[in-house]
Amino acid sequence: MKIDSVDFFYLSMPIVTTAGDGSQDALVVRVSAGGHAGWGECEAAPLPSIAAFVCPMSHGACRPVSASVLGEKLDGPDDIKRMAATLAFNSMDLLQAPHTWSGIEMALWDLLGHVRGEPSWKLLGHAKAYPKTPYASVLFGTTAQQTLERARDIRAKGFRAAKFGWAPYGDSLEGDIAQVAAAREGLGADGILLIDAGQIFADDVEAASKRLASLNANKVTWLEEPFGGFSYEAYGKLAARSGAVKLAGGEAAHNRYMAEHLIDYGHVGFIQIDCGRIGGLGPAKQVADYAVKKGVTYVNHTFTSNLALSASLQPYAGMKDSWICEYPTQLSSLATELTTTRIAPNAKGEIEIPDAPGLGVEINAKTLKTYAVDVEIKVKGKTIFAPPMV
Amino acid sequence: MKIDSVDFFYLSMPIVTTAGDGSQDALVVRVSAGGHAGWGECEAAPLPSIAAFVCPMSHGACRPVSASVLGEKLDGPDDIKRMAATLAFNSMDLLQAPHTWSGIEMALWDLLGHVRGEPSWKLLGHAKAYPKTPYASVLFGTTAQQTLERARDIRAKGFRAAKFGWAPYGDSLEGDIAQVAAAREGLGADGILLIDAGQIFADDVEAASKRLASLNANKVTWLEEPFGGFSYEAYGKLAARSGAVKLAGGEAAHNRYMAEHLIDYGHVGFIQIDCGRIGGLGPAKQVADYAVKKGVTYVNHTFTSNLALSASLQPYAGMKDSWICEYPTQLSSLATELTTTRIAPNAKGEIEIPDAPGLGVEINAKTLKTYAVDVEIKVKGKTIFAPPMV
Repeated sequence: MKIDSVDFFYLSMPIVTTAGDGSQDALVVRVSAGGHAGWGECEAAPLPSIAAFVCPMSHGACRPVSASVLGEKLDGPDDIKRMAATLAFNSMDLLQAPHTWSGIEMALWDLLGHVRGEPSWKLLGHAKAYPKTPYASVLFGTTAQQTLERARDIRAKGFRAAKFGWAPYGDSLEGDIAQVAAAREGLGADGILLIDAGQIFADDVEAASKRLASLNANKVTWLEEPFGGFSYEAYGKLAARSGAVKLAGGEAAHNRYMAEHLIDYGHVGFIQIDCGRIGGLGPAKQVADYAVKKGVTYVNHTFTSNLALSASLQPYAGMKDSWICEYPTQLSSLATELTTTRIAPNAKGEIEIPDAPGLGVEINAKTLKTYAVDVEIKVKGKTIFAPPMV
Repeated sequence: MKIDSVDFFYLSMPIVTTAGDGSQDALVVRVSAGGHAGWGECEAAPLPSIAAFVCPMSHGACRPVSASVLGEKLDGPDDIKRMAATLAFNSMDLLQAPHTWSGIEMALWDLLGHVRGEPSWKLLGHAKAYPKTPYASVLFGTTAQQTLERARDIRAKGFRAAKFGWAPYGDSLEGDIAQVAAAREGLGADGILLIDAGQIFADDVEAASKRLASLNANKVTWLEEPFGGFSYEAYGKLAARSGAVKLAGGEAAHNRYMAEHLIDYGHVGFIQIDCGRIGGLGPAKQVADYAVKKGVTYVNHTFTSNLALSASLQPYAGMKDSWICEYPTQLSSLATELTTTRIAPNAKGEIEIPDAPGLGVEINAKTLKTYAVDVEIKVKGKTIFAPPMV
């Protein structure tokens, strides 16, 4: 097959707020080859990601993403790997490229899966897919009381594990202590409690350290992203003092090296990979294999649609010991309605990874129209991007 | 002062080729505040960088660059630092943001320098600016003979040092040996010879190692970017075997952490920083200070206009021991004509850093018109970007 086209659907809620909710807009990708279609989603700013695909070439090492994809041969997984390597070289100076490519790469695995009648996780080399224990991923309440109620509600819905994140965490030590205690109380003594600091401490190890006592007292399983994605030294120093609480991070990784460095130098106990940023399923699988070697637990990172959720589960589907998965429970209507397929906990409260061709998720064509953002990019009088036909 | 506007000028040669020549297009930035203007240049793909400034917000941690700049207070260096920190948090999920911000940050130092009547290097904390020994930065010839002639020509022009880079280096071992020998012959026995592999070996340490004998035999001072910007392990392994030849790298760093990691884990002997990518002069100065502590030599990276060249020299202007600088000698007419100020070697063959307010470089308004690329970005029927008035 030959890659005939790559279409970008920029979708958005009518109103986008400053909340840390990544499901307020979406960049959905459709790749067509040999009469088949595959779907993916970039976890990225839509307009710059589209621009990275269609922009004019700047020089040999700063070519648009399209130059490494359109017209390329696609007969098997090796072709995806080859395109990734070509792109890494030809677009090395185009910073946004990995985010754009991530959604395309996902769509390529989906497409290949449809052609071969196999789930993407099989094409990635897994013999079997093990169900994962989902953690409900939510934002902290603005007050501890609200967090308590949110935690109770999650427990009532049947979740054993929950992650609370972002503001107001980091605003004050007392506030943080109250928030974590409220989350624990609401979730119950046997719940698995995770905390996401949303990089609020930048690289201030002392500020983050002050939270360790309350995190340990409340039996928190991991503290996620206390620092910026590149602050390996700060991660390493905090990890040395964090006791039973492990550090988690990696969602910012836009290549496998960044994730591996966070393991080697940052000493995280959980490595969280967003397939919509790291360059898709291929590099995510490499990180999953690397994590096993290093005794680190791989976890998906996803805060958007069930398409992105399914993609995020593929790289570690067959790894039984990597038992937990992020499961967003506060999605925008756009993200919820993006797929007609719904991935929900089974009777045991576990998430089963779709055992269907490709990513195993059907796109809702109506959603692509309802939430479409009208965008036009013109260069030298010629339209180089306009919303594609659904 | 308050930042009133940020304008992006996307310039391009009429024809852009796949050569590794970064001066074929340009993204020039003008910042206006309090009736003053400052100029900077992003070393980046223009269209995605513009998109990163004007795009709609995706969520609280994926805001456009404009959100952290427009309307902000600018009274001194601390305001630049504050904006950089705000941006790092508010745009953490917008991958392209550091490239966009780099040109803006440069322009802010230029503007402040004009207001205070002082060169940017003084505002950065340097008491004095030491002249640097320029190396002529050119591409390899397609044949060894062409490289020999290019080297002789550089020597005839009075340069003591030269760097040859990119294709066909890496194509074949014999070819590479011949190319390096030709460069040495043309430059003369006492010339300072530098080789830039342009990431051609990806992370293949063995392939790069095979070149070490010829690099040592030809007394090459540094081998630049044998590997991808994130391949610290490969850098470290090669550095352990490279003998008198030091490794150089860092141009891909889009924050100071990446550069520091290349020093700490990649064991480079020269750290090369492009102010048009790393986030401007502030983080570059931090890396320069870090390099001194670690016994590593800081070098500018620049392959575009004299505006970018001046900016690249500011962060290490006062560091006498960091004696060498990149000096592009094969610029496109667009890059040459961007400034009316020309930075050229003095009678001793050294580059003096402009001792004039800001970056000390005058923009040629005519060039902004001659090479302008007509771009329009429309979202929801509203034009969010069009070329600014000169």
